[in-house]
Amino acid sequence: MWPLPPCGQRLALLASQPQMRSDPRMSRPSPSTRADYRWFHAITTRWMDNDAFGHVNNVVYYSWIDTAVNRFLLDRGLLDLAASPVVGIVAETGCRYIAQITYPDDVAVGIRVTKLGRSSVRYAAGIFRAAADVASAEGHFVHVYVDRASMRPVEIPDFIRAALERIAVPG
Amino acid sequence: MWPLPPCGQRLALLASQPQMRSDPRMSRPSPSTRADYRWFHAITTRWMDNDAFGHVNNVVYYSWIDTAVNRFLLDRGLLDLAASPVVGIVAETGCRYIAQITYPDDVAVGIRVTKLGRSSVRYAAGIFRAAADVASAEGHFVHVYVDRASMRPVEIPDFIRAALERIAVPG
Amino acid sequence: MWPLPPCGQRLALLASQPQMRSDPRMSRPSPSTRADYRWFHAITTRWMDNDAFGHVNNVVYYSWIDTAVNRFLLDRGLLDLAASPVVGIVAETGCRYIAQITYPDDVAVGIRVTKLGRSSVRYAAGIFRAAADVASAEGHFVHVYVDRASMRPVEIPDFIRAALERIAVPG
Amino acid sequence: MWPLPPCGQRLALLASQPQMRSDPRMSRPSPSTRADYRWFHAITTRWMDNDAFGHVNNVVYYSWIDTAVNRFLLDRGLLDLAASPVVGIVAETGCRYIAQITYPDDVAVGIRVTKLGRSSVRYAAGIFRAAADVASAEGHFVHVYVDRASMRPVEIPDFIRAALERIAVPG
Repeated sequence: MWPLPPCGQRLALLASQPQMRSDPRMSRPSPSTRADYRWFHAITTRWMDNDAFGHVNNVVYYSWIDTAVNRFLLDRGLLDLAASPVVGIVAETGCRYIAQITYPDDVAVGIRVTKLGRSSVRYAAGIFRAAADVASAEGHFVHVYVDRASMRPVEIPDFIRAALERIAVPG
Repeated sequence: MWPLPPCGQRLALLASQPQMRSDPRMSRPSPSTRADYRWFHAITTRWMDNDAFGHVNNVVYYSWIDTAVNRFLLDRGLLDLAASPVVGIVAETGCRYIAQITYPDDVAVGIRVTKLGRSSVRYAAGIFRAAADVASAEGHFVHVYVDRASMRPVEIPDFIRAALERIAVPG
Repeated sequence: MWPLPPCGQRLALLASQPQMRSDPRMSRPSPSTRADYRWFHAITTRWMDNDAFGHVNNVVYYSWIDTAVNRFLLDRGLLDLAASPVVGIVAETGCRYIAQITYPDDVAVGIRVTKLGRSSVRYAAGIFRAAADVASAEGHFVHVYVDRASMRPVEIPDFIRAALERIAVPG
Repeated sequence: MWPLPPCGQRLALLASQPQMRSDPRMSRPSPSTRADYRWFHAITTRWMDNDAFGHVNNVVYYSWIDTAVNRFLLDRGLLDLAASPVVGIVAETGCRYIAQITYPDDVAVGIRVTKLGRSSVRYAAGIFRAAADVASAEGHFVHVYVDRASMRPVEIPDFIRAALERIAVPG
C-alpha cells in the first residue's frame, strides 16, 4: 500500500530477505531443527522487542528461553512460584543468533535437557519462527537448585529429576 | 506438591484469591467487558514480566497495549515498518489497574477507537485474563500521525481513517 | 565520520532536530520545568530502550517513573522490599510525551506528590533530558497502600505520610 | 523501620547476605576484577529489573552488556545510529552469574576486546556492583560487521579496528 523508498528497501532487506536472514553469521555448525527438542512453548512477540535496527534485540531472546524453561517447570508442577522451598536459580546462559526475528513474527521455543548433575541442570533451547523447522537462534540455560531460605545448593528433588530425565537428550 | 509455608500462603493470596484480585482498587467505575472492544490480540506473558511483588509489573501492560495497536495496524496493512512515509507516534497513554495478572497467565488485549481527529486517533484498550470477560486493566493510547521525514503532523491518510472508523465506538 | 545517506538523513532528523523534538504534539499546556518537582533521580538509558523508530519506546518511560518513585521510597526508608508489611501497589498511571528521548541520552525523573488520600497517593513525574530544564514527558502514578498479607487497602502509615507531605505540591 | 516477619527474613537472606551472594554458584574459575577490563560504563538499575525472586532477572544483564558495548562505540564515534553504512550485528552472547545483583544497586560494566577477526569482534564484559572490585557476572558479546544495505559481512573498517585494538587484551 505504501510506495517503497530507498530507505525502506534497505530496511525491508534487513527484515525479510531469506539470504539476509541466514547469510552473515553462518560459517558455523548447521542449526538444529525442531526434532532436536522435546518440549515447545509458543511465544508472541511485542512491538518493543524490535530495537533501532528494526529486528528483535538480542537480549529479548533470553527472556523467551527463560519463559519457556519456567513454563515447562510450572506446567509439570515442578515449580510453585510462591511455595517451592527449593528453586532453580540461573548460573549460566548463552545464545548464538543465526537468523533474524522481527516483530510481529510469532516464535516457538523448544527445549531439551542436555546435562543433569547433582544440583544443576543444563537445557538447550532452539528458537523457531512460526513456520520454520530450522532454528533462528540456539541457546543454553543452566539452573542450580538451591534451598530458598539459605540459598545453598541442594540436590535436585527426585520428582523434579524424574521430569527432567523425560526431556533429556544427552550431548 | 510443595508444602505451603507462611510466606507462601501470603504470596499465594496475592497471586490467586479472587477477592484480592478485585478488591483494593475498585471504588471506581465498573470495569469494561469484552463486548466493549472491537479487535483482540492474544499475548503470552513472560517470566520476567513478574516483578518483585510476584505479579506483572505495571509497566508491562503498556507493552501489551502498544503491541495490540501496532498489530492491528500491521494486520490491516496500515503500517509498513520499513516503508510507511506516514506513521503514528505516541502522544499520550494511560492505564488503570483493576485486578492482578501474573505470569504464566495468558492475556488478550481488546481495542476500539474512541476519538478520531484530523491527525490523531485515540484508542481504548482492555486487558483480559484468558478466561475472563471482565477487564483486569483498562488503558488508552493516542497516536499522532506524522510525516516520517519531517516529523510534522499530517492528516491521517484516508485508507487508514477508513479502517479506524470500522473499530470506532465513540465515548 | 560516516557519509550521510538519504535514509540516514531522515532518521537523523527523527533523532536530533530541535523542531522535531518539540513540534508535533505540542498544542497542549506548556511542559513543566525542573522547578515543578521536589525530588530527582538520574537514570541511564539502554540500547534496547530505543524501538524500531530509533527513539525510546513509550513503554520505557513508565519504567523510569516506577523506578524513581520506588527509589524515593527506598532512600527515605519507607519501603523494605523484603520486610514491609504494608506496601504501595499501582492503581493508575499515565504519561504524555512532549519531545523525543533517544538512547544514549541520560535522563532525570523529577517527582512531587499531588494528592494524598487516606490510603492512596498520587505523584506527578517529569522526565528531563540531561541538560534540559523543560520536561520531555510528564506522567502521573497512583499508589494504593495495602496490607501485604490480605492485599486489602490500609491507611498510609504515619511515617510514610509525613515523608510524602514533604514532597507535596498540591494541584 | 519495619518489623521483620518470617517471610521477610527469608527474602532478606536472598537479597543481602554476603554468603548468599557468592556461595551457591562458585565452584568455578575465580571471577575477574576491574583491572581485567579497559573501558567502563555506569548503569542505573530499575525497579522492574527485579523478578519474582527479588533479584535482577538473568535477562537484564544482557541489556547492560549490550548498552555498554554500544555506548563505547558511540562515545568513540564508531557508530552513528542513523547514518553508519556498516554496523555490528550480534552473532553470539553468553553470561555466567556469580553473585546476585538487586535493584536499587548501581552497576558498572567493564569491557575489553578479546578477539579481533576480519569481520568480527569478541568482547569480554564484567558486571560490578557499585563498590565491588570483583565481578558479579561475566559475559561475552560477539559483533559481526555487515553492510547495512546488503546485510553481508564486511571487513571491519580501519578506524573502528584501530579503536578496538586500543581496548584489546587477548585471551
